[in-house]
Amino acid sequence: MSILTRPVLQINLDNLTENYKKLCEIAAPATAAAVVKDNAYGLGAEMVAEILYQKAGCRNFFVAHAVEGERIAPVVPDAHIYVLQGIGSDSLELFEKYKLIPVIASPEMLQFWKEHAVKGVKPVIQVETGLNRLGFRTEDLAKLSAADLKIFSMVLSHLACGDEKDHFMNRYQLDNFNSVRRQYFPKLPATLSASDGAFLGEDFCCDMVRLGAAVYGINTAPYRPNQMKNIIEVKAPVLQIANLPKGDFVGYSATYRAATNRRIAIVSIGYGDGIPRALSNVGKVFFNVCGKWYEARIIGRVSMDNVICDVTCIDNLQVGDWGYLVFDEYTLDDIARDAGTISYEVLSRLGKNPRFVREIKKSAE
Amino acid sequence: MSILTRPVLQINLDNLTENYKKLCEIAAPATAAAVVKDNAYGLGAEMVAEILYQKAGCRNFFVAHAVEGERIAPVVPDAHIYVLQGIGSDSLELFEKYKLIPVIASPEMLQFWKEHAVKGVKPVIQVETGLNRLGFRTEDLAKLSAADLKIFSMVLSHLACGDEKDHFMNRYQLDNFNSVRRQYFPKLPATLSASDGAFLGEDFCCDMVRLGAAVYGINTAPYRPNQMKNIIEVKAPVLQIANLPKGDFVGYSATYRAATNRRIAIVSIGYGDGIPRALSNVGKVFFNVCGKWYEARIIGRVSMDNVICDVTCIDNLQVGDWGYLVFDEYTLDDIARDAGTISYEVLSRLGKNPRFVREIKKSAE
Repeated sequence: MSILTRPVLQINLDNLTENYKKLCEIAAPATAAAVVKDNAYGLGAEMVAEILYQKAGCRNFFVAHAVEGERIAPVVPDAHIYVLQGIGSDSLELFEKYKLIPVIASPEMLQFWKEHAVKGVKPVIQVETGLNRLGFRTEDLAKLSAADLKIFSMVLSHLACGDEKDHFMNRYQLDNFNSVRRQYFPKLPATLSASDGAFLGEDFCCDMVRLGAAVYGINTAPYRPNQMKNIIEVKAPVLQIANLPKGDFVGYSATYRAATNRRIAIVSIGYGDGIPRALSNVGKVFFNVCGKWYEARIIGRVSMDNVICDVTCIDNLQVGDWGYLVFDEYTLDDIARDAGTISYEVLSRLGKNPRFVREIKKSAE
Repeated sequence: MSILTRPVLQINLDNLTENYKKLCEIAAPATAAAVVKDNAYGLGAEMVAEILYQKAGCRNFFVAHAVEGERIAPVVPDAHIYVLQGIGSDSLELFEKYKLIPVIASPEMLQFWKEHAVKGVKPVIQVETGLNRLGFRTEDLAKLSAADLKIFSMVLSHLACGDEKDHFMNRYQLDNFNSVRRQYFPKLPATLSASDGAFLGEDFCCDMVRLGAAVYGINTAPYRPNQMKNIIEVKAPVLQIANLPKGDFVGYSATYRAATNRRIAIVSIGYGDGIPRALSNVGKVFFNVCGKWYEARIIGRVSMDNVICDVTCIDNLQVGDWGYLVFDEYTLDDIARDAGTISYEVLSRLGKNPRFVREIKKSAE
């Protein structure tokens, strides 16, 4: 028996690189870009950007904030780094230092750019086509001067429902995008789609596709089985196994009561590590005992450092055994569905706690 | 008009210290300990531990994992650092190096301790009294030898329903705890309560109270108005203001549709920064325009980097103005309630993204 206390986050960089390459093929002939914003969805932007740069020839990266561009700039020399939230007085210096490329989304930000343009950098313009988030609206575009229109290097928009193949919004947004392109930017390269749009066909891929979620193994085309490989494994050791007598309650606010005698395991991971508290009384922990997989239901509230699960039907489970929260057979998509959210949010949380032992799976050079 | 892109997390260390001191008074004559696990609920364990050590004389700290103890050890010399998840082969070295004090919760971990005891350290024993999480059960205690019982320096348990003043579990757990103390540890100091228990009266405070959530401003006695001061402000700049025409959809999966012409603001913060995605179509953003506070409803899905809110009724709002997600009038307790979770989970997420500009409010020495 081993006594262990720390949860483990394993990241499979081989699968990540393979996912990216597969997506490049799907998106071709469009150019592929990697989205590494939010610290590569929590996994470590430098690590992810570097491997895609070195092993997959990626030369275009999207981040949300200039501070994120600053982190990856040293490991992706001569690559284009696009900053989706754009430029402002709180980030101008970083744009100058690293020649980051802002995505300009409003007339006000364009005005700022004209007053503070960074030499040698041609920004991207974001146009609004139906998501009603960031981007120039029709009335904003109409006010652009001929000189304004020449400032940009690319035109960008973003789909609202790209993960629903037949949603009317997809065609509606594509038509809007093409109409704006024809009218204002007939000669500019264009990018409309993230991972989900890449699966919608060539029309949606335009000149560049921004690959994020699917690179990280998330199924962005959930109307068919996932073509991406899982890149994440989260496991934590069993700290204790105990009898739960009939009638006893479990966890904060006593939200679970044993109707029969049960046996429980306390696993050393909680919402402090990024396991959504919404999994209380709903989520699952998996155990491999003597080569066989078992599924145990989380009972009671998920607490900051622990989850408690019902292991009554698992013989021979021992203190120190691993409980799996995410693995190849229960992926980010599965845990997110059980938590009532999307894989992106779960992934974004998991990578952020320094308590994890981080293990990187990567083939030798 | 200013153009800004980054969200800001402000931490008020004066209020944090004041909360801690007030809690010390409430808990007296029990000794106070500060809970700084999960990186001080995301805020920075070194910073929080150091200020409580220096400004409030705190000499007892609780963390969950030894790696968290390692981080604070240099700033709290000669303090006791207790490790709630206990000790194992993946952390033994840190216990030896920093003389951390493990909380031992199972017979298996006790066995490990007896084989690897750290010289000069007397561990704490955790006993189970009703939470059915970590801790020695009655049957485990019965098996302890007389020598075993002499190993420990303190006996610990944890309340399940301490935030509900009249919940039957509180008295039930206290009675169980006192019974175990009498039978096995009549001479040992004891700690039963976290912040919530501190408000339940002297019986529950025993010899030491472990102060976490309430120090961070969370109301752990929600049956009466909060006596703690808010220590957190989260704000993000408006990136764009736009018209939303009647019939248009907003955000991913088009979950909001404008029934009338609206005006929207896109604010530069999202779930990547720790704003729960559960606030989609539910949460609020607050704006101060010309000295007056306005409340705007989040519409559509919260995305990774942005929230969109309805500002139709806010005159004179401008790009670059601040949208407040957490502030003195809409605290962690409020945002957590709207997100269907607890303040602890929200706080634990907010502190973890390096994209925040972090501002520390602290009076001069």
